[in-house]
Amino acid sequence: MSLADNNQKTRTAVDIYGQTYTIVGSETSSHMRLVASMVDDKMREISERNPYLDSAKIAVLTAVNCVHDYLKLKEQVEQMEEELQKLKG
Amino acid sequence: MSLADNNQKTRTAVDIYGQTYTIVGSETSSHMRLVASMVDDKMREISERNPYLDSAKIAVLTAVNCVHDYLKLKEQVEQMEEELQKLKG
Repeated sequence: MSLADNNQKTRTAVDIYGQTYTIVGSETSSHMRLVASMVDDKMREISERNPYLDSAKIAVLTAVNCVHDYLKLKEQVEQMEEELQKLKG
Repeated sequence: MSLADNNQKTRTAVDIYGQTYTIVGSETSSHMRLVASMVDDKMREISERNPYLDSAKIAVLTAVNCVHDYLKLKEQVEQMEEELQKLKG
């Protein structure tokens, strides 16, 4: 999913933190709107905790939080893969 | 993991896309530096594909990509949980 990637089909306009973005990708518009609303929620949450930060820094910290959550989930996937391998013998 | 959350212990200064951030959290500094370098890499990748975007928009699109990846991984976790439940009877 990326901006300005015209090999993919769906174009969805979404609002995130007061700005409109056109997201282009192979996912459904409803998936893209869900992703956008999660980013918007997280940015507003971080902004409330850090009211002195500008929107670029809020967005970077949103990405930082998200990569952190991704890595934690990745660890969980690895543990589950090990468990599955053991169960399958 | 968040900026300005003083209930947690570790404070790590990281550089992301030319800005320094102090990330505070219960994770190790090495985990935080890994997260920061992943965000930095992704921002530079998106910036190369979209050279006309300012850093705030690049950061938002980085967060969008990351939430998308997170949701895909979450789907994988749910499938693996189902498979584990079946195997455990």
